[in-house]
Amino acid sequence: METLQLFPAPLTREAFAPFGDVIETDRAQRMEINEGTTQRFHDLAAVDVKSDGGHPLINIFRGQPRPQPIDIRMVERHPLGSQAFIPMRNDAWLIVVAAPGLTPEPSQLRAFRAKGHQGVNYHAGVWHHPLLVLKPDHDFLVVDRGGPGDNCDEVWFEGTGARLAV
Amino acid sequence: METLQLFPAPLTREAFAPFGDVIETDRAQRMEINEGTTQRFHDLAAVDVKSDGGHPLINIFRGQPRPQPIDIRMVERHPLGSQAFIPMRNDAWLIVVAAPGLTPEPSQLRAFRAKGHQGVNYHAGVWHHPLLVLKPDHDFLVVDRGGPGDNCDEVWFEGTGARLAV
Repeated sequence: METLQLFPAPLTREAFAPFGDVIETDRAQRMEINEGTTQRFHDLAAVDVKSDGGHPLINIFRGQPRPQPIDIRMVERHPLGSQAFIPMRNDAWLIVVAAPGLTPEPSQLRAFRAKGHQGVNYHAGVWHHPLLVLKPDHDFLVVDRGGPGDNCDEVWFEGTGARLAV
Repeated sequence: METLQLFPAPLTREAFAPFGDVIETDRAQRMEINEGTTQRFHDLAAVDVKSDGGHPLINIFRGQPRPQPIDIRMVERHPLGSQAFIPMRNDAWLIVVAAPGLTPEPSQLRAFRAKGHQGVNYHAGVWHHPLLVLKPDHDFLVVDRGGPGDNCDEVWFEGTGARLAV
């Protein structure tokens, strides 16, 4: 069987809307504050971490590139809360998602290429591949849920899954 | 009257403890995840935004440098919630704080110089100067409280306040 190829699309708010929020300054509500020395780009993501006694966590994830070609062999989801990833350095990175609900098949995956100033917030229950970076030691600020309960499901595909065309 | 000079100290967890958390990977709890391709530096800040029906917000603040010398003429506090600032680019920045409680005088101010990989989380009620950056268009991810209530107090000093020795 031929390997399914997955072609990353540019990350935009519209294309990503079924999966979560794009965290970026473009087209955000902005306020001038601090005597005009700061612009506040306001409320960029729907943080949703209160289910079952949860609370927000701030973490740093340090990602390493996987060998290429990158085979997408699994996805995971966090049923109890959202999870936001914001790059702390201006390097592009990759995103693979599937809509919440059914158990995903490789043919239902969607891939996006994020610019280095773009973060995302996966909504609760959205299937996604773990962090995919292109350069070593790429740090991300991560805002997700702490608290009781089992907040991670994984699905592993049969065979090689899908191959990411980077 | 001679202007009070304020000398920034290096930002460390110990020195900053009376005011909040330092958000950095050094000496943090770390977990290997994602098949060994990611390190999770876990739970780096005490996010406290639930008072009076509050909820967490994710924002981006874009800071511009002030003309030097920088005179610290005021501080502000957010009595209802914490506020975290994490640089999205590896450039040093400055912090001026005063302990919560009394109305601060310029002589009670403390200044810190943060490296570009260091963020902070001001605890609720901690007096702090608005964002102080050293290069143009320095973006920060900010996690703070949204919700009802008056969550900002300001104190303006008489005269010039204190002068930051950059």
